[in-house]
Amino acid sequence: MRTRPLKVALLGCGVVGSEVARIMTTHADDLAARIGAPVELAGIAVRRPDKVREGIPAELVTTDATALVKRGDIDVVVEVIGGIEPARTLITTAFEHGASVVSANKALLAQDGAALHAAAEAHGKDLYYEAAVAGAIPLIRPLRESLAGDKVNRVLGIVNGTTNFILDKMDSTGAGYQEALDEATALGYAEADPTADVEGFDAAAKAAILAGIAFHTRVRLDDVYREGMTEVTAADFVSAKQMGHTIKLLAICERTEDGTSVTARVHPAMIPLTHPLASVRGAYNAVFVESDAAGQLMFYGPGAGGAPTASAVLGDLVAVCRNRLSGTTGPGESAYAALPVSPMGEVVTRYHISLDVADKPGVLAQVATVFAEHGVSIDTVRQQGKDGEASLVVVTHRASDAALGGTVEALRKLDTVRGVAGIMRVEGE
Amino acid sequence: MRTRPLKVALLGCGVVGSEVARIMTTHADDLAARIGAPVELAGIAVRRPDKVREGIPAELVTTDATALVKRGDIDVVVEVIGGIEPARTLITTAFEHGASVVSANKALLAQDGAALHAAAEAHGKDLYYEAAVAGAIPLIRPLRESLAGDKVNRVLGIVNGTTNFILDKMDSTGAGYQEALDEATALGYAEADPTADVEGFDAAAKAAILAGIAFHTRVRLDDVYREGMTEVTAADFVSAKQMGHTIKLLAICERTEDGTSVTARVHPAMIPLTHPLASVRGAYNAVFVESDAAGQLMFYGPGAGGAPTASAVLGDLVAVCRNRLSGTTGPGESAYAALPVSPMGEVVTRYHISLDVADKPGVLAQVATVFAEHGVSIDTVRQQGKDGEASLVVVTHRASDAALGGTVEALRKLDTVRGVAGIMRVEGE
Repeated sequence: MRTRPLKVALLGCGVVGSEVARIMTTHADDLAARIGAPVELAGIAVRRPDKVREGIPAELVTTDATALVKRGDIDVVVEVIGGIEPARTLITTAFEHGASVVSANKALLAQDGAALHAAAEAHGKDLYYEAAVAGAIPLIRPLRESLAGDKVNRVLGIVNGTTNFILDKMDSTGAGYQEALDEATALGYAEADPTADVEGFDAAAKAAILAGIAFHTRVRLDDVYREGMTEVTAADFVSAKQMGHTIKLLAICERTEDGTSVTARVHPAMIPLTHPLASVRGAYNAVFVESDAAGQLMFYGPGAGGAPTASAVLGDLVAVCRNRLSGTTGPGESAYAALPVSPMGEVVTRYHISLDVADKPGVLAQVATVFAEHGVSIDTVRQQGKDGEASLVVVTHRASDAALGGTVEALRKLDTVRGVAGIMRVEGE
Repeated sequence: MRTRPLKVALLGCGVVGSEVARIMTTHADDLAARIGAPVELAGIAVRRPDKVREGIPAELVTTDATALVKRGDIDVVVEVIGGIEPARTLITTAFEHGASVVSANKALLAQDGAALHAAAEAHGKDLYYEAAVAGAIPLIRPLRESLAGDKVNRVLGIVNGTTNFILDKMDSTGAGYQEALDEATALGYAEADPTADVEGFDAAAKAAILAGIAFHTRVRLDDVYREGMTEVTAADFVSAKQMGHTIKLLAICERTEDGTSVTARVHPAMIPLTHPLASVRGAYNAVFVESDAAGQLMFYGPGAGGAPTASAVLGDLVAVCRNRLSGTTGPGESAYAALPVSPMGEVVTRYHISLDVADKPGVLAQVATVFAEHGVSIDTVRQQGKDGEASLVVVTHRASDAALGGTVEALRKLDTVRGVAGIMRVEGE
């Protein structure tokens, strides 16, 4: 084993960074044995140097992250700051000064992944980011390496623990959205401003990264259709249960049927209770992958948290250090397929539509005609009357989002339709 | 991209081999793009050259596997013959003649993994075998690479699809073992001679491989305690359900509590219905991993079959080809921890014991005394009387296998105990 240590610069010492530092210290011997050389924390860049950080050597702490990545003797920069800047500049500076990079930064990778990969390649360095998607769950490496000889057709994932906690709570207790959110906040599963989670921004960033890797193409954050889950109601769960389903916020990346393009989207969806994703509870994440040869795979685990994310970061650190010792780099960006990303209108799936209608003869015929005129085939209809009003629940066969949109627009214009109470996609069948 | 192709020799052209050959042909462009050079099937060694093999170029077929691996221009040998010989000799010959090896051979890896790794290392070649454990499910790579910065404490897996199909059938229909086995055989899930599956030999080989990788130590097939599932009855499932459990044949690899040794075992066990492994249906496999930092992870998918296994083989092929192009090798054997394997008597778990006892006062007190004398603490007792006889179901707290064995021996000697109807371990809590 080499005795001269590999030097690691840690950018950020919050929930994840402090766990990375802790494990690097407590498991130093194991890491050295697995890498083939010792690793040494050479510096830790923080914003607030005065904050008490138990177990973190004070002499390593600096507020000058730029000077740290420019030192020239750093082998690997671990970026766990998050956000776009200064993370982006620090990472490119790191490459320019000879370091490889391990990052947990989903927002940055989703927005600028291609440029960062190009910078890494230009300098012959590694850029690894297992922790950016689904925390501790090995996902990037399996998709990029284990399935490298297969053709992935669909990735269907619960990639945000906060929203899964909320939806699971609504499912199991019958609570409404606000009540479940309040509990998630009280328990620390949701942030004070939960927008990034509940509006699907966080999941959309992960969808962009997953789609790019799964399909060997480039998918940017802007390419991902996004719909949050703030409008999911207790009534939606009742409807879902009536058809043996539950509701999850899913990130869905698919090859279109003719294989010439891909789609990526995040929205709430009904999935059958028999689907492996349906039983993913609490703040856990899980990603379901469908490929030509392997068939159906699922990866399950904690999607966030200091220690789980640190596990993913350190797995990458070991790999990058090993590459460095053997004078090579791991797989970089694989975007050779260069498939276009189709707009949401071309996505084909099934829909669950609840209508408030007048309780009189002929309404169902009118509604069915509208569906037929738009080429949307109906699978089942359930009609319930109450006090002169009635509700009509329609579940469709597969149809394009555009066709469904046209159908709903036309339904709203019918005199007998009082309102469209809810539209939800049905997935995983 | 390099234009000179990497040459692959395929040993075996059965269910898996023919899929490997098929995908190498139909997905040649994708493989070339992902590797950075074309790959070419240079030869296929078979036992029966006259068998019709659709899509397999006849000019590549040979019966002389030894000559094929000795050619000297082969970059990667893919071994999907199975069994110990001639696979072992062919693999070592391949290393000697400059090739890296991708294998799906669990029996060989479990028995001679250390020697094969040593041969690979001595010749500076790769030995990859993702397909040897749980078919298409990425497991070896996540354990060896993604979790390289973490400390794995337990691996709990359903790693045999045949037995899971049988147990799932018994669970869902109330069928007995033989009836469920007959159905598995009729449907092609069980072989004519199901011994390797139902007696746990197949799972034990996988347990040895998983334990070695998870704990960075050497675990041989002989180190794995093994108990088949042929004696699981419909009544056991009724008992399991009464406590909210089901029964699975599990491969369990654990660090002992003080961390100084490991254990590996295969046996039927009751697990709670709320455990993610409980909902693994049919012939699917799943492996649950517990580690210090990542927490609880699960990997799920098809554990066998031609195409799924080929997916894993080809993922390895891409990795090995990439390593070859960059003049390096991937992670080899990591056995630095050199932990001893403790015998079964030292395994600590919970037990579900059914006793047929005389239906008279004082029996429970007698039985409880025996448990206490052996240091086995009782969690719950359920007593049911019927026609002068009674059954007593005892669920214990955690105790060593040796202590439980002593308890059962003493119970058998009690006049009031007519028989020990069943003993099953309780896991996953």
